[in-house]
Amino acid sequence: MAQGDDDDVPLILTWDEDANSGLLSDGALERVDENGTGDCDGVGDASVPKPVPVHSRAQISNRQSWEINYQEAAIYLQEGENNDKFFTHPRNPQALNAYLFAHNHLFYLMELLTGVLLMMLSLSEAPAVPSLRLDVYVHATLELLALVMVAFELCMKLRWLGFHTFIRHKRTMVKTSVLLIQFIEAIVILVRQTSHLRVTRALRPIFLVDCRYCGAVRRNLRQIFQSLPPFIDILLLLFFFMVIFAILGESSSSNTHTYKFTHTHTHIHTHTPYFNTLENSIVSLFVLLTTANFPDVMMPAYSRNRWSCVFFIIYLSIELYFIMNLLLAVVFDTFNGVEKMKFKSLLLHKRSAIDHAFHLLVTRQRPDGISLKQFDGLMRFYKPRMCARDRFLTYKALNQSDTPALCLEDFYKFYEVIGLTWKARQSREHWFDDFSHTMFLIFKGIYILVKSKAFQYAMYVVVAVNGIWILVETNMLNGKISPLPQISFILYSFPVYGVEMLLKITGLGPMAYFSSGWNLFDFLVTVIAFLGLIATAFNMEPFYFIVILRLLQLLRLFKIKQRFRNVLDTMFELFPRMASLGLTLIIFYYSFAIVGMEFFADVIYPNCCNTSTVADAYRQVNITIGNDTVLQDGYYYLNNFNNILSSFVTLFELTVVNNWYITMEGVTSQTSHWSRLYFMTFYIVTMVVMTIIVAFILDAFVFRMNYSRKNRETLDNSEDEKGIVFEAEVACAEIRQTLELYKQILPGTNLSSLQGLCVAIEQTDSVVFLGRRARTKSDLSMKMYEEEIQEWYEEFSRISFSQSEQTLQD
Amino acid sequence: MAQGDDDDVPLILTWDEDANSGLLSDGALERVDENGTGDCDGVGDASVPKPVPVHSRAQISNRQSWEINYQEAAIYLQEGENNDKFFTHPRNPQALNAYLFAHNHLFYLMELLTGVLLMMLSLSEAPAVPSLRLDVYVHATLELLALVMVAFELCMKLRWLGFHTFIRHKRTMVKTSVLLIQFIEAIVILVRQTSHLRVTRALRPIFLVDCRYCGAVRRNLRQIFQSLPPFIDILLLLFFFMVIFAILGESSSSNTHTYKFTHTHTHIHTHTPYFNTLENSIVSLFVLLTTANFPDVMMPAYSRNRWSCVFFIIYLSIELYFIMNLLLAVVFDTFNGVEKMKFKSLLLHKRSAIDHAFHLLVTRQRPDGISLKQFDGLMRFYKPRMCARDRFLTYKALNQSDTPALCLEDFYKFYEVIGLTWKARQSREHWFDDFSHTMFLIFKGIYILVKSKAFQYAMYVVVAVNGIWILVETNMLNGKISPLPQISFILYSFPVYGVEMLLKITGLGPMAYFSSGWNLFDFLVTVIAFLGLIATAFNMEPFYFIVILRLLQLLRLFKIKQRFRNVLDTMFELFPRMASLGLTLIIFYYSFAIVGMEFFADVIYPNCCNTSTVADAYRQVNITIGNDTVLQDGYYYLNNFNNILSSFVTLFELTVVNNWYITMEGVTSQTSHWSRLYFMTFYIVTMVVMTIIVAFILDAFVFRMNYSRKNRETLDNSEDEKGIVFEAEVACAEIRQTLELYKQILPGTNLSSLQGLCVAIEQTDSVVFLGRRARTKSDLSMKMYEEEIQEWYEEFSRISFSQSEQTLQD
Repeated sequence: MAQGDDDDVPLILTWDEDANSGLLSDGALERVDENGTGDCDGVGDASVPKPVPVHSRAQISNRQSWEINYQEAAIYLQEGENNDKFFTHPRNPQALNAYLFAHNHLFYLMELLTGVLLMMLSLSEAPAVPSLRLDVYVHATLELLALVMVAFELCMKLRWLGFHTFIRHKRTMVKTSVLLIQFIEAIVILVRQTSHLRVTRALRPIFLVDCRYCGAVRRNLRQIFQSLPPFIDILLLLFFFMVIFAILGESSSSNTHTYKFTHTHTHIHTHTPYFNTLENSIVSLFVLLTTANFPDVMMPAYSRNRWSCVFFIIYLSIELYFIMNLLLAVVFDTFNGVEKMKFKSLLLHKRSAIDHAFHLLVTRQRPDGISLKQFDGLMRFYKPRMCARDRFLTYKALNQSDTPALCLEDFYKFYEVIGLTWKARQSREHWFDDFSHTMFLIFKGIYILVKSKAFQYAMYVVVAVNGIWILVETNMLNGKISPLPQISFILYSFPVYGVEMLLKITGLGPMAYFSSGWNLFDFLVTVIAFLGLIATAFNMEPFYFIVILRLLQLLRLFKIKQRFRNVLDTMFELFPRMASLGLTLIIFYYSFAIVGMEFFADVIYPNCCNTSTVADAYRQVNITIGNDTVLQDGYYYLNNFNNILSSFVTLFELTVVNNWYITMEGVTSQTSHWSRLYFMTFYIVTMVVMTIIVAFILDAFVFRMNYSRKNRETLDNSEDEKGIVFEAEVACAEIRQTLELYKQILPGTNLSSLQGLCVAIEQTDSVVFLGRRARTKSDLSMKMYEEEIQEWYEEFSRISFSQSEQTLQD
Repeated sequence: MAQGDDDDVPLILTWDEDANSGLLSDGALERVDENGTGDCDGVGDASVPKPVPVHSRAQISNRQSWEINYQEAAIYLQEGENNDKFFTHPRNPQALNAYLFAHNHLFYLMELLTGVLLMMLSLSEAPAVPSLRLDVYVHATLELLALVMVAFELCMKLRWLGFHTFIRHKRTMVKTSVLLIQFIEAIVILVRQTSHLRVTRALRPIFLVDCRYCGAVRRNLRQIFQSLPPFIDILLLLFFFMVIFAILGESSSSNTHTYKFTHTHTHIHTHTPYFNTLENSIVSLFVLLTTANFPDVMMPAYSRNRWSCVFFIIYLSIELYFIMNLLLAVVFDTFNGVEKMKFKSLLLHKRSAIDHAFHLLVTRQRPDGISLKQFDGLMRFYKPRMCARDRFLTYKALNQSDTPALCLEDFYKFYEVIGLTWKARQSREHWFDDFSHTMFLIFKGIYILVKSKAFQYAMYVVVAVNGIWILVETNMLNGKISPLPQISFILYSFPVYGVEMLLKITGLGPMAYFSSGWNLFDFLVTVIAFLGLIATAFNMEPFYFIVILRLLQLLRLFKIKQRFRNVLDTMFELFPRMASLGLTLIIFYYSFAIVGMEFFADVIYPNCCNTSTVADAYRQVNITIGNDTVLQDGYYYLNNFNNILSSFVTLFELTVVNNWYITMEGVTSQTSHWSRLYFMTFYIVTMVVMTIIVAFILDAFVFRMNYSRKNRETLDNSEDEKGIVFEAEVACAEIRQTLELYKQILPGTNLSSLQGLCVAIEQTDSVVFLGRRARTKSDLSMKMYEEEIQEWYEEFSRISFSQSEQTLQD
């Protein structure tokens, strides 16, 4: 156990060249260089300079130099966690101040809000959503303010990074130039008091993407760009066949009366617009690739000659069923590779960060271990909110060899241990063990009841009956409004759910009950249904709400089968990633929506497109069929680009692909045929993103299934489902010693958590603490690639070593 | 080398209990039992009886008993290759005769033709394709004849299998019962002279699927059924959400004026038929799942309240983008597992077959090796067409330890070696090495030219220019018929391609030229284009044909990039499997087409469905819009079930999914709403098959890419691209000895191949032969699962051993 002597001297003095060079003589150089300069920055950039100590520290005390080291180490560890490159590491006290200013949640939140505000502006700029329209000078001023904020953030970054690093950082440079353009345009608008054609607004998402909280979106974008080269190759193949078939279709259409389709003597209809020119042929086949015009495009030719379907069947078989799947296969394969490389580089980056931090924390007297004192100093900077007890327990959990100091090998587990929440191991089996005997028996009975299969299945039966009841009822109602029977059922079924809930809470104990996600779900649904019931009693019209709640109850049925539980668990595990993919998609939507609004706002209205082939879909007119007059409402004029919300809905419809060509042809007939480029580009972009999403879901599930298969062989499954668990055993003497140490090094701080522990532990000799956290994808990957990870580490340290040798030779 | 002595005695005498039991004394029992009864029949059926020798062979000579053993061994090896279970192995001479009768290509062809004929009958049965209509008694008689053929085939099978095995063989029993039903129905038709409602015709594909050549289709079907359980689970999840959303949609539609959509206060349009009843809600959402009715189903609600799109966006996000992809993931995962299991069981089945064969071929004197004489005897039965030289070379290739006899370990490679085509290794570098010096230099120059990068890229440029020319021309023509410029281009470009072809043939030599698939493709396209040119000169109108050929030339551009070559190579490698998947799909189509024809023939005609919501699509009528009168032709009446060909096209349209609900609603409006079940079932079935196809393509490509990645590490890639190569070195003395042996054991047979070899070899001391064959998926799997295969073998022999121990204890 480390003593609180103030004469421990750090091995490395941050920003102090003299101290560092002074160490060269005592043989520590090899270690420092080997581990200190081998920074793998996570994306293969090998030209990372070693953080150069700049600041002279002759005037500051040993204690102060430790504080600076703690902070430096905490920054390294944060950089490792966030996958920040080390070449952006602050190099002097001024930079450090700027770094600390720019790295806290307040600043991040400001970044995020500025980004969101800038994007939201398009709601109010012309063409605006009617209810949110703002005057030109108002929204232009707002924009200028937001841009000034962004400029301020960039200035902070410039101060922290230094000019040299700043201009080398590509993302920041792009942001700066976009900022300049936006600035000029905003000023122009303010001066002219009117909006001009501003396609550059499509670049606004850059400000959002660049902010700290959108790291996942940035990673997604990078992954999409990495998957592009093979994607484009297959896309070329796709277009090649499309052009070949377009020429075939066009020739057979234009030469109908002279020439025949080989073997089958097909004439493709010459009077339909699908294949009359090469451009139309290509567009028709492009739309056919999305199947959106399918039987229609074939019908005129098919009505002439039944064999003409062969042309379309062959085209669809090659393009849709073969090459499109090939596209998925290629993207899936690339995706797999990229995921693994990403994991590897992140892992090595973290390791390198830990190396850096380790050498800042060891003392000159003991260069191969971190004492509790130093670790605690680090943690106070790394996680200021963590209480003293948890800092101590984290140290214990890391220190598996149980030596007085933490060696590097132990310290490598830092990121695995850091997120744990600690709790003393419950020696009691049930929460009611301390109750009197009679009570115990009652509770025990309830416990056995709620744990029994029969009880579970009885509840499933109730839920299923409930479901069937809803179905029958809804079917019988059939438009007649009679909410009473529905509410009556709530009255019947609610007591059952309520009793189940109470039994479970009493049987399992409140803590155990609420720690299960499924129970929490049951509880919430039942309680809200009860509240809804009360509201209905007071005629507050929450009917629709109750319908939804009743249907949600049915979800409980999916607990029955292991596969469903797996699927739902995986779904929850993947949710953050899915959300970030969704956000990525929305960012693409935003850019396309802006471009669409700039060019196609207000071109679509009822009866706008009577000259086009899709006139029917836009028609709002009384037509006469025989003797009847019918209002024919095509409704498609609703799919327009008149404001950003309409644009988003229109783009979603284009994403779903069905009938997208109606929107395309409508807009095209009102503008020029170059508009098709916009729609086709959008289709291809969403195809890329959607393929990535499919590949992601495929990869995640296959990975998860492989993992659980692998796990079933080695580990008991039920144990593993609880997440990641670490143990730390604490003896009474130890805790007292630690308390003394803390009182010495941190006089006046709040040590109640440790003192409480000290009191609690007095009866027993020692206590075992369990640290738990949820399992992440990274944990799964760690297990899946177990063997490879060792190889990576070896390779990594080999490279580090050869780099350090090179450094020595230089 | 084995001598031709006639006093070699087989270790095992087939069908001879005495001889077999006689062996029990001399310690061979363990070997026999260990390897002889451990038959893993490929599908995990462990209750396989040991082939029981029945026939007494006291009266037959040693030579005859060898012949019987050869045949028996050949049958075992064939069973191993075809994955036939060993319990169907013929057990006595009568069975053997029937087996031989039923196992040759003539019989297989008869089976196939009968199956195809039965399926083709539906072209001529009412509702028939107009031009192929036959009288009732004609097609019923044809059907009876075909059924008699099937009955005859079944009788042969009964004779060969024996009654007991016959009724245990599920597939055969199903076939028999279907045959009986079909028989009765055909007779009923003949008696009544009119067709009745005959849904059982949908079972006809069973006769086709059961025939030997359709083994791949059977395997596909099995794989589809194996993937079903997880598929159905996820389908349930899908339907669960569908029903929840249907109830929501229906409630919000039927309660529009009283209740509101939570938070968003959406009213879903009450006057549209999409959500007015629960059934319509479910159907609408089912169709929405296929996106076929997408923006339309949303439009009425959307026109009322813009926020109603949230309902549809959430539904599509959950169902289409999440659960449908999950479906693919689950099927893909199961598919992976099934593929591996299939490969494993086939591999072990083959190994077991080889074990069986080995013990029939060894002599009592040398029970651990097969001599050339015995191997040759086997091969004469196994591959009667193989010439003596190839039999000898195959033996040499197997015999890698170069001992006089073939040990079991060598013999295990049997299936890898059996398909090789043998050729002496070319010692010459170029085909023109023997030419005079001047000629050699000229040819060498041509060789260097055609091998040069510059030449290749020049040709790519020509092809690309050709492609651009075609595009420009087609665009300029735009409907004007002027074939002359197109032909003129053929006149310009043909000489270039012709010269390239001639240069390549002279430079590489005809043999090398034509051994490359790409060159063969170039050659054919150029020659056919030339023939087409001549035909055009005589005004024979092959214009369209030439257009296609010109476009095919463009395919050559895809040689440029490695990825395209990979894709195309993989495509060709996968082609057989893809074809069998296509055939599987067609079999499903056939069954659905028959059912469709029986119920929906002639219900669809122009203006048939004026009462339905899709009336427009079926309308063929003059309508008035403003002052204009236009012929509105909906064309969808063409998508009917009036005969089997129309049904196939209609079903293909349903497979492509877009607008499929128009066909469904049309038919439903003319029949009952139960018809929707047919269409929905069809959608789900094609979804299963299509998901399997996607999973297959994904699996195949990912596998292939992993393989080439793995291969790049271990092997030089160019070597591997040539396929599988085996070497056999033959010395002159050896070949002479073999010739003598053959003359002795096979007097009067044609040994010209061996004699020719003998003459050719006389100059040199020895010659190396190379046996080549194309690489199959099985070879790839062998390499991929290298390590696991060893484990499987060990496990397999452990099981065999424990089985044999059990046999000993019994």
